[in-house]
Amino acid sequence: MAKQKKAPRPKAITPKGFRDYFGAEVTERAEMLDKIAGVYHRYGFDALESSAVETVEALGKFLPDVDRPNDGVFAWQEEDNDWLALRYDLTAPLARVYAQHRNDLPLPYRRYAMGPVWRNEKPGPGRFRQFYQCDADTVGAASVAADAEICAMLADTLEVVGIPRGDYIVRVNNRKVLNGVLETMGLNDDGQRDAVLRTIDKFDKVGEAGVRELLGKGRLDASGAYIDGVGLSDDQAEPVIAFLTSRGDTAAQTVENLKAAVGDSEIGLDGVAELEQIADLLGAGGYGPDRIVIDPSVVRGLGYYTGPVFEAELTFEILDEKGRKRQFGSVAGGGRYDDLVKRFTGQSVPATGISIGVDRLLAALREKGRIGSEAQGPVVVTVMDRDRMGDYQAMVAELRQAGIRAEVYLGNPKNFGNQLKYADKRQSPVAVIEGGDEKEKGVVQIKDLILGAKIAQSASHEEWQDRPQQFEVPRADLVAKVREILDQY
Amino acid sequence: MAKQKKAPRPKAITPKGFRDYFGAEVTERAEMLDKIAGVYHRYGFDALESSAVETVEALGKFLPDVDRPNDGVFAWQEEDNDWLALRYDLTAPLARVYAQHRNDLPLPYRRYAMGPVWRNEKPGPGRFRQFYQCDADTVGAASVAADAEICAMLADTLEVVGIPRGDYIVRVNNRKVLNGVLETMGLNDDGQRDAVLRTIDKFDKVGEAGVRELLGKGRLDASGAYIDGVGLSDDQAEPVIAFLTSRGDTAAQTVENLKAAVGDSEIGLDGVAELEQIADLLGAGGYGPDRIVIDPSVVRGLGYYTGPVFEAELTFEILDEKGRKRQFGSVAGGGRYDDLVKRFTGQSVPATGISIGVDRLLAALREKGRIGSEAQGPVVVTVMDRDRMGDYQAMVAELRQAGIRAEVYLGNPKNFGNQLKYADKRQSPVAVIEGGDEKEKGVVQIKDLILGAKIAQSASHEEWQDRPQQFEVPRADLVAKVREILDQY
Repeated sequence: MAKQKKAPRPKAITPKGFRDYFGAEVTERAEMLDKIAGVYHRYGFDALESSAVETVEALGKFLPDVDRPNDGVFAWQEEDNDWLALRYDLTAPLARVYAQHRNDLPLPYRRYAMGPVWRNEKPGPGRFRQFYQCDADTVGAASVAADAEICAMLADTLEVVGIPRGDYIVRVNNRKVLNGVLETMGLNDDGQRDAVLRTIDKFDKVGEAGVRELLGKGRLDASGAYIDGVGLSDDQAEPVIAFLTSRGDTAAQTVENLKAAVGDSEIGLDGVAELEQIADLLGAGGYGPDRIVIDPSVVRGLGYYTGPVFEAELTFEILDEKGRKRQFGSVAGGGRYDDLVKRFTGQSVPATGISIGVDRLLAALREKGRIGSEAQGPVVVTVMDRDRMGDYQAMVAELRQAGIRAEVYLGNPKNFGNQLKYADKRQSPVAVIEGGDEKEKGVVQIKDLILGAKIAQSASHEEWQDRPQQFEVPRADLVAKVREILDQY
Repeated sequence: MAKQKKAPRPKAITPKGFRDYFGAEVTERAEMLDKIAGVYHRYGFDALESSAVETVEALGKFLPDVDRPNDGVFAWQEEDNDWLALRYDLTAPLARVYAQHRNDLPLPYRRYAMGPVWRNEKPGPGRFRQFYQCDADTVGAASVAADAEICAMLADTLEVVGIPRGDYIVRVNNRKVLNGVLETMGLNDDGQRDAVLRTIDKFDKVGEAGVRELLGKGRLDASGAYIDGVGLSDDQAEPVIAFLTSRGDTAAQTVENLKAAVGDSEIGLDGVAELEQIADLLGAGGYGPDRIVIDPSVVRGLGYYTGPVFEAELTFEILDEKGRKRQFGSVAGGGRYDDLVKRFTGQSVPATGISIGVDRLLAALREKGRIGSEAQGPVVVTVMDRDRMGDYQAMVAELRQAGIRAEVYLGNPKNFGNQLKYADKRQSPVAVIEGGDEKEKGVVQIKDLILGAKIAQSASHEEWQDRPQQFEVPRADLVAKVREILDQY
């Protein structure tokens, strides 16, 4: 009989742009999100977990009549012809949820959400197609008190997760002020307004001088390419520059500068008044300019949002990939977007919110040594005699009942060296050994693996010489002695 | 100019078979999973979060050459022609992860995973196409000590989340024993073996007499349809019945009965010996038959697993939809499946694990009153004077700093009744009121909303008459007085 041809083995790989998270990567994120949820909860926000899958129609970024509407999202067609997609953020689902459940939800509706989102984009270094977002939004509150509160909550959140005061700053700006500036300039041509908006968005990168050039004739960029300018005269461009550089020493000074920049534009003055109110409310709540500032140089998102815009930056320095010092930078952003629900219901519903960059904030906490330091491995009870597995199981049961992470080695126990290698790979703090002799004497051997590793690393053994790496204790003292070692580290 | 035709509004609905989870539904599940993760961690298991998206090839349930391989899963084709799919469980991704990372992972690899999975199946009442699973598995441990440990961990887990001892039982069976029984019967025909396996799977539903009929000539089922039998004689069927009913008063007695049922079948005796070892190991760890029993009547999954099989049942009674008492039933199941990784690497890797039915366990905890009782709403500070928003924000800032969940009403404050309706909808325990008069006197009004609700519900007011629903306190005592009320409930 001919040998049956076997199907080739499947490849054991994640799809391109996806990854797995192991051990502390998972638990540290979960702990951070848990702390954040605690702050959000304290502020009166309720949890929401919407489904990961939405109709493409509800996500709203795509036309239902195109053949393959998965540009930017992961989408597929169901047998009943509906197109479904994985959510690409947590805001679009909030709009759908609020429109769907608005008769049952309180108004205002304060909700937080945390979970993965998916982007069908080209992956790159550190850029994955599945990542976590963590959002809080207030839907149905037109008052800037809602915006002020989001800023205060953001500052509290950063401190609760472990960013000390002084290492972060929340900056607040307002799209309406910019609109006022554009109005004052007499820019009524939409194309020119958009060009100015796009230019302002580059302020972070090119600075004041660069923006001046880009608003005027144009600019040679770093690569040597010439970027065409908006074509404004210096005088015309001045109000934009005044706006971007209007931050004063105090909120009051900034407000004065902004008033000058918007002239008698109604929307501009409205925006300035909002910033003033936000500063007052935050002051009343005890959030001074050491934590939250009015800063018109915040431009990220100004094109997207309709009112106040917020950004949280970490101000401590890190070394970039080329070894240069730079500020850690942005970890959260948000603002007011007042047309959230309108596409579903026809009614305008004001909303404001914040999104925390979960991975960046985790990276910051690692950078500051706030997470990732403690040994997380279990105590490993080794197996000297495979017929006495019951004895070893009893030991780990005792340890676990005392709250100590512990396990029996469950691989093939023949090679004792492999058991210690396993303990090493697990970053175990302690190994427990009980052979036939120990059993007879009623003792166990305790091996301090952290001390062992320290001795192996250090040039001089002197500082450790008084402490034994391995010692014998009565079986009855097992839990107490293990606890004693763990408490040292 | 003709009016531009507008696109129709999108429908604000979840896709069929999906749902949203609000407030306590989210936090109660998160808290339960957190407690479970705590137990798994203590047992030495490490967290793993694999990507939600896998290649269809790696998931392995589907052929890569069919045009639309999304039978049972949500799948789509990428531009590079790869088919991707949402994971349908947490075991298939574990196999992929272990095969992919086996050179870096410890051996044995103990991992837990919790998260949503997706099934492209017809939804039904209480049956959703996205739901949570919570698994723990040990990969690379051939020893039944690994199985025993999974059972012990399952028992501990149930107690830690709030199922008291006596209200649950973990049952253990072994596929090898059944194989031995089939061997003894001389059933070498694969079709007949499969028919017997399928019949055994119905033992839960049809009982001993039903299985006897189904192994023999056949049976009239409840709907009046006649189900053909396997066609065995009574004598031939006897070993199967002996196996299913072999549970004795003690583990030792059960083991004796099983030995008789498998005769001299080597694999059968091997299976019995494994059950005996598991019982011994669990006994040594202090897990008696009040928590874990050897019970050959556990048949769910016997067709799928290759060795020991576990099931956790809750034994307290609930009323079913027709008002009849019945046991709550199964909340977790698992077993040994030794060919997990083979399809990727060609090497057999032993594995054993458990999966907890997250939604069923949550339902059980609600049934037992272990979750869902406490009021979770925030203290609501009402807005009597919208120009004094800063004063109100200062109040909530104080309350929050004292760890009390609190918020200012952020809707339109014009109608005070709406503010109290909002507090009611949020299940707020307390509302705080400070109008102009109170401000002048340096006091605030505190409204005990829980007491108010109790008075509204109770027929007689007498028991509450000494306690005021609303009272005035000095502004400086706000936090202390609110705390006092909260501590009463």
